[in-house]
Amino acid sequence: MHRCKWLLVFGLLLGGEVRGETPSEPIQPVQPVKITDVAKVELGKQLFFDPRLSKSGFISCNSCHNLSMGGSDNLPTSIGHNWHQGPINSPTVLNSGMSIAQFWDGRAATLQEQAGGPIANPGEMGFTHDLAVDVLRSIPQYRASFKQVYGDDGIKFDDVTNAIAAFEETLVTPNAPFDRWLKGDKAAISPSALKGYQLFKSIGCVACHNGEAVGGGSFQKMGMIEPYVTQNPAQGVAGLTGKDADRMLFKVPTLRNVALTYPYFHDGAYWKLEEAVDVMARLQLGRKLGTEEVSQIVAFLETLTGDQPDFKLPILPPSSAQTPRPQPFN
Amino acid sequence: MHRCKWLLVFGLLLGGEVRGETPSEPIQPVQPVKITDVAKVELGKQLFFDPRLSKSGFISCNSCHNLSMGGSDNLPTSIGHNWHQGPINSPTVLNSGMSIAQFWDGRAATLQEQAGGPIANPGEMGFTHDLAVDVLRSIPQYRASFKQVYGDDGIKFDDVTNAIAAFEETLVTPNAPFDRWLKGDKAAISPSALKGYQLFKSIGCVACHNGEAVGGGSFQKMGMIEPYVTQNPAQGVAGLTGKDADRMLFKVPTLRNVALTYPYFHDGAYWKLEEAVDVMARLQLGRKLGTEEVSQIVAFLETLTGDQPDFKLPILPPSSAQTPRPQPFN
Repeated sequence: MHRCKWLLVFGLLLGGEVRGETPSEPIQPVQPVKITDVAKVELGKQLFFDPRLSKSGFISCNSCHNLSMGGSDNLPTSIGHNWHQGPINSPTVLNSGMSIAQFWDGRAATLQEQAGGPIANPGEMGFTHDLAVDVLRSIPQYRASFKQVYGDDGIKFDDVTNAIAAFEETLVTPNAPFDRWLKGDKAAISPSALKGYQLFKSIGCVACHNGEAVGGGSFQKMGMIEPYVTQNPAQGVAGLTGKDADRMLFKVPTLRNVALTYPYFHDGAYWKLEEAVDVMARLQLGRKLGTEEVSQIVAFLETLTGDQPDFKLPILPPSSAQTPRPQPFN
Repeated sequence: MHRCKWLLVFGLLLGGEVRGETPSEPIQPVQPVKITDVAKVELGKQLFFDPRLSKSGFISCNSCHNLSMGGSDNLPTSIGHNWHQGPINSPTVLNSGMSIAQFWDGRAATLQEQAGGPIANPGEMGFTHDLAVDVLRSIPQYRASFKQVYGDDGIKFDDVTNAIAAFEETLVTPNAPFDRWLKGDKAAISPSALKGYQLFKSIGCVACHNGEAVGGGSFQKMGMIEPYVTQNPAQGVAGLTGKDADRMLFKVPTLRNVALTYPYFHDGAYWKLEEAVDVMARLQLGRKLGTEEVSQIVAFLETLTGDQPDFKLPILPPSSAQTPRPQPFN
């Protein structure tokens, strides 16, 4: 019976290998997206790029989650309405649908819930949900699109965020060199990157950075072994719960496309992947890596850059005479 | 002999008609662009969308000449570095290569010369030409692209603006309903729009708004018959020459895509085309139009919306460890 069990396990593993799967790896390839509701995704794409969802008429979702730049703004913390200095680093929107929750502190359960946040945040888009809906209702092409997708004549704010979330769900980045390696193309990554991956697993990075998104699946304390020194006052989940145990508890970020989403950490304090790897190993794992180890892990991380968004620049429907005017300066 | 001359003229006109031309119309169809140097245009497109050409790392050419929004920002005056309130309405970049000069006061002779202006303007992108070049030189993919297009190892600022201008030259909008009408498709515009066009010619709008761009070909005094009342201190060409005769002398804007490029005039004071037509007729032509005349001219102007930019969202090359960091807040 004991022998039979082992044979069964061996058979399962072999079966996986034969089918081209890699059941034993803690990271899975990003699956290409299958768009089922084209009209909804196209509507969400327009909304994502539309600065009229902000008070100023100048800031869109794409301003801070720039799809030309890895779905981020590549700034330590974002610029918001009236040049407000944001409190935290803008996380990439790429593959964000794979996360267990949204925002660094996970205060939104879903992409849809997240999408409403920045619109109404005075330091981000500076608008209100009602005013955003008023703007959209005044635009004939949006009215027609919402009617086509959601079937009613009005436009509801929930539909706005539903469409944005549907678009964001399509922002996956398959075909990274590492994914091709996972699927059996052993030449897809360099020997150095492979060593980096082996280190990434053996020293324990993979305990938190795993799955399809290589992260995004849990909350962890930033500064597990050694405290994280920062000027940034964010306290993570404790900001929501008020509990001491939740201090510096942040959602583990995805490492997909991490080579594009500098600067790093919730405070955007580190610009170089080498530094970020060194800090993580010391603070989270109590391990001081050598220079070569760091560069091997960086070589691995660079293989996580997948296919970037591949669609036409959306053309936005024009405002009408009834459209409330943007208020950039008052 | 006298009769022969008339026969000749008749023959020429008929010949034009037979060949499908409209030699007697003061407006010509926008010609589709033929891109000869694909690599240069692609490079220029990346630069146009790249906020790293600004001090903050947040503002790109596309911020104020938004190609999703008629090549403009649809604001009275633009938002610049540190939320600076711009002095003048951002003109559309669409078809801007057809203008005799750039900026409202024509202070740049070419698109290339124009492109350098906002980058170094403290109230726009807030950078310097040298720092912009430093950023680009630090980015390996840009170095390779510039080498491919311009053949040398360094990156010169003149090449930066040359590439941006080459991209902008491609931003033409052919196939407007009015152009299809010009080419013989008599059903392409409504009877109301046709009456509007006839009015546009008969009352004299066409004296300044003519040619392929329906404007952009001359400088005219804003407030020819009656002064233009505005809070905006801009004095047009006089701001450059200091001459009293040049006060309120501005480049005639293109009317191509005018339905998308609200609000109107150099101060962006009017949001509705109806208002803009009324003001122009009164101030420039001394004519008070009736409501129906205004709506006919508006119907004509709406037929000037052509094919909008049709290309994929550019993906920007990532910064390197050597890339100077953006300075949004200092």
